[in-house]
Amino acid sequence: MSRASLAAITGEVLVGALIPERYRVDRSGHVPGGAPAVLVRAADVDDVRHAVGYAAEQGLSVVVRGAGTGLAGGACAGAGTLVLDVTGLDRILEIAPADELAVVQAGVSAAVLDTAAAEFGLRYAPDPASAAISTIGGNIATAAGGLRCVKYGVTADAVLGLSVVLADGRLLHTGRRTVKGVAGLDITRLFTGSEGTLGVIVAATVRLQPVPVDTVTVAASFADVTDAAAAASAVIAARVRPALLELLDEASLREARDLLGIEERAAGAFVVAQTDGFGARAEARLVADTFRQFTSRVEVGTDPATADQLLAVRRAALPALERHGRVLIEDIAVPRSAIAAAVQRITEIARRHDSRIHTFGHAGDGNLHPIIVVPADDPAAEGRATAAADEIFATALELGGTITGEHGVGVLKRRWLEREQGTAALEVQRSIRRALDPAGLFNPGKVF
Amino acid sequence: MSRASLAAITGEVLVGALIPERYRVDRSGHVPGGAPAVLVRAADVDDVRHAVGYAAEQGLSVVVRGAGTGLAGGACAGAGTLVLDVTGLDRILEIAPADELAVVQAGVSAAVLDTAAAEFGLRYAPDPASAAISTIGGNIATAAGGLRCVKYGVTADAVLGLSVVLADGRLLHTGRRTVKGVAGLDITRLFTGSEGTLGVIVAATVRLQPVPVDTVTVAASFADVTDAAAAASAVIAARVRPALLELLDEASLREARDLLGIEERAAGAFVVAQTDGFGARAEARLVADTFRQFTSRVEVGTDPATADQLLAVRRAALPALERHGRVLIEDIAVPRSAIAAAVQRITEIARRHDSRIHTFGHAGDGNLHPIIVVPADDPAAEGRATAAADEIFATALELGGTITGEHGVGVLKRRWLEREQGTAALEVQRSIRRALDPAGLFNPGKVF
Repeated sequence: MSRASLAAITGEVLVGALIPERYRVDRSGHVPGGAPAVLVRAADVDDVRHAVGYAAEQGLSVVVRGAGTGLAGGACAGAGTLVLDVTGLDRILEIAPADELAVVQAGVSAAVLDTAAAEFGLRYAPDPASAAISTIGGNIATAAGGLRCVKYGVTADAVLGLSVVLADGRLLHTGRRTVKGVAGLDITRLFTGSEGTLGVIVAATVRLQPVPVDTVTVAASFADVTDAAAAASAVIAARVRPALLELLDEASLREARDLLGIEERAAGAFVVAQTDGFGARAEARLVADTFRQFTSRVEVGTDPATADQLLAVRRAALPALERHGRVLIEDIAVPRSAIAAAVQRITEIARRHDSRIHTFGHAGDGNLHPIIVVPADDPAAEGRATAAADEIFATALELGGTITGEHGVGVLKRRWLEREQGTAALEVQRSIRRALDPAGLFNPGKVF
Repeated sequence: MSRASLAAITGEVLVGALIPERYRVDRSGHVPGGAPAVLVRAADVDDVRHAVGYAAEQGLSVVVRGAGTGLAGGACAGAGTLVLDVTGLDRILEIAPADELAVVQAGVSAAVLDTAAAEFGLRYAPDPASAAISTIGGNIATAAGGLRCVKYGVTADAVLGLSVVLADGRLLHTGRRTVKGVAGLDITRLFTGSEGTLGVIVAATVRLQPVPVDTVTVAASFADVTDAAAAASAVIAARVRPALLELLDEASLREARDLLGIEERAAGAFVVAQTDGFGARAEARLVADTFRQFTSRVEVGTDPATADQLLAVRRAALPALERHGRVLIEDIAVPRSAIAAAVQRITEIARRHDSRIHTFGHAGDGNLHPIIVVPADDPAAEGRATAAADEIFATALELGGTITGEHGVGVLKRRWLEREQGTAALEVQRSIRRALDPAGLFNPGKVF
């Protein structure tokens, strides 16, 4: 039967040394021990079922791969694994404009869906930074975030239903096509963010939303990150619901401006907000007025070109830091009231561990990305960076936050999960995993 | 130890005939066989743990009760049960305005929390019709909906974290205090909507939202429900995000006006919308213009008094029908594009089964409440109503919808769950239930 399973696969099967090296790693920097035994590039859902059946028989574990752009090691595949590449499942099966939903296969990218939806005046709201290159299946498996989720919700909020291949090879359909629905346990949400540990997501029904009628961008520089964080908090307190609200600390701003060749005026920290919808202008005025309580350096743009220009600094932050070495992209979230405290403590951690750490992120929802730069020419930097990362996680928890706002646990944060959630929560998750995948077929050694 | 468990309870313990009759039933009309053996009115979380321990030892199952306002029989308690009343856990533990969240015990009502939050310019967005009398614990257990969830999300969207007493008596904390967070499986969402089958929800961390700066109400009468549904769809297609969008069919409107003593002008169906936030006026103009493509009878109100008046018809619909007998409050949801078809088919079902069925509901999210009136003086009406309800559920599924938009499965829709979701989905849910509650202690015979 195992031979039959493999023979039935209409996609591509590669074994051993023929498997490209890139399937071992994602974008986290984690390198697993060993290399995968088999690679299946699925052409359809039946291929997925055959591959899962074959792996179960052969005692291989299954590592599902979208584009491999994960940042926590969740899709890394080492020894004893069958890598199941689902990027070939790349069809948009349906767009239903009146019901504002789409049905897509797992290998479609968010950007491709977004473009297709735009023909109907709709969009797929979740916008992870990787939207152009990652897959929706991967976005769902990691419950990915993004910039505009401060107003429009994260990936999990956009998922109405899933099709999932289970450990026993059965195809499960979850969820619904309606906006509302409460029949049974919310297993759609359980698979969303399960990081490949419960089954293989092969398709999804996702919510679409209207493209906003108007968008305004407001950007400002502040004396320091404390002022910037206070200004961002004041925007939220003013009842504005920005569509994005991003913060860069002093060093990130300096680096980003340097990369863009923007002549540095005064030093400081940076906040950029976008408001959208029917109240965009009124909200933007309120944002600008709020910023002006903290700084005189406020710019407003109502056209796409100016918006792009004002957002360019935020977009340049990561590439700017990547010039200086390998980057560890951390991903804590704290209650919004603790943003300034978190950035200050990260600055102290950087000093204590003699590491270069710059922080930017989503001030609207308290999700910060401390970027630890590991210079290639400093062999001891890696160890210092790891120690600093641990202190950053501890700080997030001390401030009432989480070790991961949108990237997931994967392998890198596994030992932190119990510390955040407690023994009972971990045991509940493990018992669910055992119930759905008794043999531990899917992504063992990840998350729990 | 069992004696010790009971003796340790600081709340009230009643047994046998001393237990008030109301604990057997909720508002669904379902009456279980037999009566509960023990009632524990918990005074604190330890009481809950002791009660669960006692029930496990005595072979009693545990039925958790909030206010008993459920509409699916989920909190009905018959023979062999220990009823666990958690309404005594009624403290608001914390309101954190800067982080826009509250921590509340399960027995707090949504309305009480909403009032407390208002002091900070915030509100608890989910607004089930029962908000003044039901408990947040019950709202969470049933994943309750409401009117304004078309813009602000359902109860599940407002829940950040839970405290739950498990079958083994352990206290589990799930979730987080941050807006974003993806660490581990989303077990917060798993318990939300689990209808008492996985554990006892004793506290919750919930999201608060700013009170909108402005609200406008637009109401209109239409020639018939087809026009009304088309107008509601056109509002959504115009990219407006109303804060509520409610529809009444012809008969519901007639009955509601009759109850309110409003002189009936032309017959027809009714739609009322509210827009809010910074763009409320602009959105309301667009709603009114959209309605006017279908009718000339459009009214707009910008002050609270006019809003109340325009919404009065919607609020009167259920009480108006209750004058004519016992009401079965059904709760299907269909894709928005199928609302008119659903209402038309329900009208045909009513005719075929010689039943009085009037439909109103949440046009913004396709969640319809067909109300089947069972006159007390017609002994055969009950049977016809049940047959009609079954056809309504079948119609919902045929139109791509669900058997329950916001009330839950309970006992009344149990045999429909597999038909909606399929065998694999039901088995997955049962396996999760077994993993968390191997002895089937919590609410056996409900949902699955």
